[in-house]
This record gives sequence, C-alpha cells and structure tokens, in this order.
Amino acid sequence: MSQDTFGYERCERLPHAERIVYQGLEGAYSNLAAVQFFSQYPEAGFSHVKTFDAAVRAVDEGTGDYAVLPIENSTAGSVADSYDALAKREVSVVGEYLLPVRHALLACGDAALADIRTVYSHPQGIKQCAPFFEEHPEIEAVAVSNTAVAAQLVQAMGKSSAAAIASAYAGQIYGLKVLIPTLNYRAENTTRFLIVGKEKLYLCGAKTVSLMMETRHEAGALYHVLGALYAEGINLLRLAARPVPEVSWAYRFFLDFSGSLEEAAVQRALREVERLSTSLRILGCF
Amino acid sequence: MSQDTFGYERCERLPHAERIVYQGLEGAYSNLAAVQFFSQYPEAGFSHVKTFDAAVRAVDEGTGDYAVLPIENSTAGSVADSYDALAKREVSVVGEYLLPVRHALLACGDAALADIRTVYSHPQGIKQCAPFFEEHPEIEAVAVSNTAVAAQLVQAMGKSSAAAIASAYAGQIYGLKVLIPTLNYRAENTTRFLIVGKEKLYLCGAKTVSLMMETRHEAGALYHVLGALYAEGINLLRLAARPVPEVSWAYRFFLDFSGSLEEAAVQRALREVERLSTSLRILGCF
Repeated sequence: MSQDTFGYERCERLPHAERIVYQGLEGAYSNLAAVQFFSQYPEAGFSHVKTFDAAVRAVDEGTGDYAVLPIENSTAGSVADSYDALAKREVSVVGEYLLPVRHALLACGDAALADIRTVYSHPQGIKQCAPFFEEHPEIEAVAVSNTAVAAQLVQAMGKSSAAAIASAYAGQIYGLKVLIPTLNYRAENTTRFLIVGKEKLYLCGAKTVSLMMETRHEAGALYHVLGALYAEGINLLRLAARPVPEVSWAYRFFLDFSGSLEEAAVQRALREVERLSTSLRILGCF
Repeated sequence: MSQDTFGYERCERLPHAERIVYQGLEGAYSNLAAVQFFSQYPEAGFSHVKTFDAAVRAVDEGTGDYAVLPIENSTAGSVADSYDALAKREVSVVGEYLLPVRHALLACGDAALADIRTVYSHPQGIKQCAPFFEEHPEIEAVAVSNTAVAAQLVQAMGKSSAAAIASAYAGQIYGLKVLIPTLNYRAENTTRFLIVGKEKLYLCGAKTVSLMMETRHEAGALYHVLGALYAEGINLLRLAARPVPEVSWAYRFFLDFSGSLEEAAVQRALREVERLSTSLRILGCF
C-alpha cells in the first residue's frame, strides 16, 4: 500500500450526485443505465443533452455532477465519440455499469403485429434485430438517432402500422405496449457505460484502472508499454486506439487493466508507462 | 528470401480487374478511390452496392473481382463495419489507396451562398465542416447516408436553398456547381481504402502485412505477440480491436506492420505469432 495515488482520492460514496446528465432522450438506454447506477442515490436527478461531448462538457464546466456515457457494446464495439469526448476534457471516470440490452417491439395500444409496416429505431437496434426483418419482409426499417426518439415518434404518430425497437422502459415512458418483449437475436448483448465526474475520486473496491496515452513513434513503443504491465503481473483488459485529431495517422491508446491505484505494483507500472510514453493521463479507477 | 509466403503469390499486376465494387452511390468517395486506384486498368468497370458487407461478399462469391473499402480516416478513425466485413469472408487485401478528402459545397446552377438554408451530407461530412455551420447559423445541416446521396438529392430537388457537402467529383456527376471548393477545416483529412480480392496475391513492392488474430485469454498475450514483431525489428503500423461476435467481451485484433511476406524476418515473426495466438489469418500484403 502507498499513498501515491496520482492525485486520486478514495471515497466511500460519490459526493454531490445530484445532477446526472446523459445523451439522448428520456427512455434512452443511457437514461436507464443512469437511473440504475444511481439507484442508491436518492438525491440524483436526471437530464439529457444532445451529444456525448455535451454530456462530458456539462461535467467539466460544472453544470452537471456526473455524466453516464456508453463506451462499448459487446457486439458493436467501442463508441468512438465517447472516447473522443473523454480525451478532450479534464474529467475522470469514477464508475462503470453494464446494462444488458433488451430490445422490445413497441406499438400504440390498438396495434397488432400483423398491422405493423414500419419500424423505427437506432441503426444498431435495427442491425441487432436483423432476423426479425428477414422474417417480416413486409416491414420496413427506418433509422432514427436514438431508440427513445423512435418510441416518442411512434407515440406522436399514433398509427397502428408503426412500431419502435427500444427498451420496455422507453415503452413505459411513451405509453406504448410491448408487442414482442425480446427482439434482439443475441441475448447476451450488453453495453458498458462509464460514470464520469469532475473530481479525481475512486470508490472503495475499485478494481480497474483506465488510462490514455501516446507512445513515441519508434519500433516497440507499444510493446514496451504492455511490458511494463506484464512485468508487474497486471492483466490488460482492453485496448482501443483513436486518431490524434491534430496529426494525421497518429494514434492515442486507451488501456484498461486490472488493479487499483492503491496497489504498489500498479503504481510502479504506471510510473514505467509514464517514462515510456510522450503523454499519459490516468482517466480513472473504478 | 524464402518461398514460404503462407499461400500468397506475387504478381506484377492484379489479374481480372474488370468488375470493381464499392459501397454507396456513383460520386461517393469510395467511387473516386476506386476510379483512381484502377486508373491503370482500362478493363475496369465500376458498380455500387448498399453495404460494406455486400461489397466484400460480391468478391467472396465471385460476382465482383475487387472491392474498394474505406477502412480508416485520419480524423474519424477506423471503419468498424469494414473490419467486420473482412473478418467474415475468405478474401484477401491486395492493395491500399490514400484519398485526400476534399469536401466542396455544391448547389444547383442558379444558387448563391446567400440562398442556402439547408445543407445535406454524411454525418462525418457535417462534422468535418463544423466551422462552416458555426459561421452560418441560418443554415441547417441534415444528415443522409452518403455524400453522393446528398448531391443526388440536391439535384433532384432543384431548389436554390439546398446544397450538399460532397466531393467536386460528385458535383460533376450530378450536374451541380461548386459554391466553395474546400469546406473541410482539416486540409490533411485523408481516408485509407483497402483493395480486396479473392485470390491470395501480393503486388511486387508490397511493404505492409496485415493480419487478424485472437490471443489466449491470459496476462501478457498481446504483449508477447508484439514481442514477436519487435524481436525481428518489425515496426507495428496499426492495431485495432473489434469484438468477436459470438463471445461477449472477447476481442480480435487487426495488426498492420511494415514488411513483405517475402522477407525471412517477417516469416519468422508470423510463425511465432501463429504459435502465440488461438487463431491467425494473414489478411494480405500490399
């Protein structure tokens, strides 16, 4: 154990969890993740903004306390805009939440499956329910910006020929009935959300460290960084590369690994990674 | 030099470059990349399909000879659907082409900039021209599926209040005039395209090897794979991770590195990578 936790402080509970911001609309999967993650925080209120960047900006600028950000889906992969939003702002990741994605087919009260001709959803919702559209060639899929937008649209139209692919939670919010409860073909489909705050805090029991770094442009640069983890017996969980906006074909890496900032092995590894990289930012411990 | 080139054969020129397939519509950046890459192949004809997967499938099933596939943009990052399409099919990458992205503002013959109220483009086109929309708050941006679709739409509407963000090439095809020739704020914005064929071929002078692999689920697995390259003095160019569709939170890696399948050092490194991975496929040499 050591006290050199890179400016991060341990806490028992997230402070000031009052203004929780997510991207999208009421009833979006991000809303559901936010409500579930903060279920132990009765002081939490929820509001939505238009983009991932606006959610992170709200936290950075103090108009929100925490943002709930989808970072990765188990079948669709990483959410590039979320990574870029984190890279741009001085914020920290204080938690993560795994939300199973259960797409339902939602329609107005008097509609039956045989009536449906048009189904609205996010492009990923349509893709994840591809077998349904193959079985029903009479139904057209129309992409909108969010599954909750689809539910809201179907409610507003009030036609029995329209349906939405969204969560049952969105159905409750927009007063739609569930025609088919589980439409997605891969039952284990899960989205991983990050909880983003302004202060450098980590909760007791945190077991993942997340960092963002750029390596020197020389052979073996990334190899040596991974070696710094391996030498300390640390397990790499994820690795994502995103372009550095200012420089063509330069990349920054996002690494998640097992451990806590309190562990001496993690601290040694981080100091070695810092020595090997041209920039290093510890995004958080959760 | 060795003859053990993992089933790949060297060629001076791509054979049967007659039916070239790309995703999108005539005038899309993929069309422009295809025409430019195959400019030395007078036998080449071009056709478009709806999805990246359909383009790769055409090559796999023999209804097309080569597909031209955007794989990465210098500012937006990797194109996940292209990686997934390559992973699904038994095809090989036989070339790459770097296309500078020059977005123009296109409108009907009688329109002036002061008339424009709505601009259509692909979401990336809109994002890459963000400063233009900040300078012109009177202009609304509307996202469509492709920059060429935007140009076609503006032609079909024939209104002087509508414009498209697309290439000057799309403007020629759809009879639109160029109001502003270079609208994107980052002049070095470049998209990297892969040329995908059915046969395992590599052109003389190829200097990049691309592979797809899955590692064991144990600490240091990726570290040791990168070590196999480093030990042979091979420079890693790119690394991308994509989810394995069948397994939650399992990843496959796409690695590009400098070298040719003819080099003994590359062959040694590949045999070592094969030993360290649970699956390895050499995607190509180009």
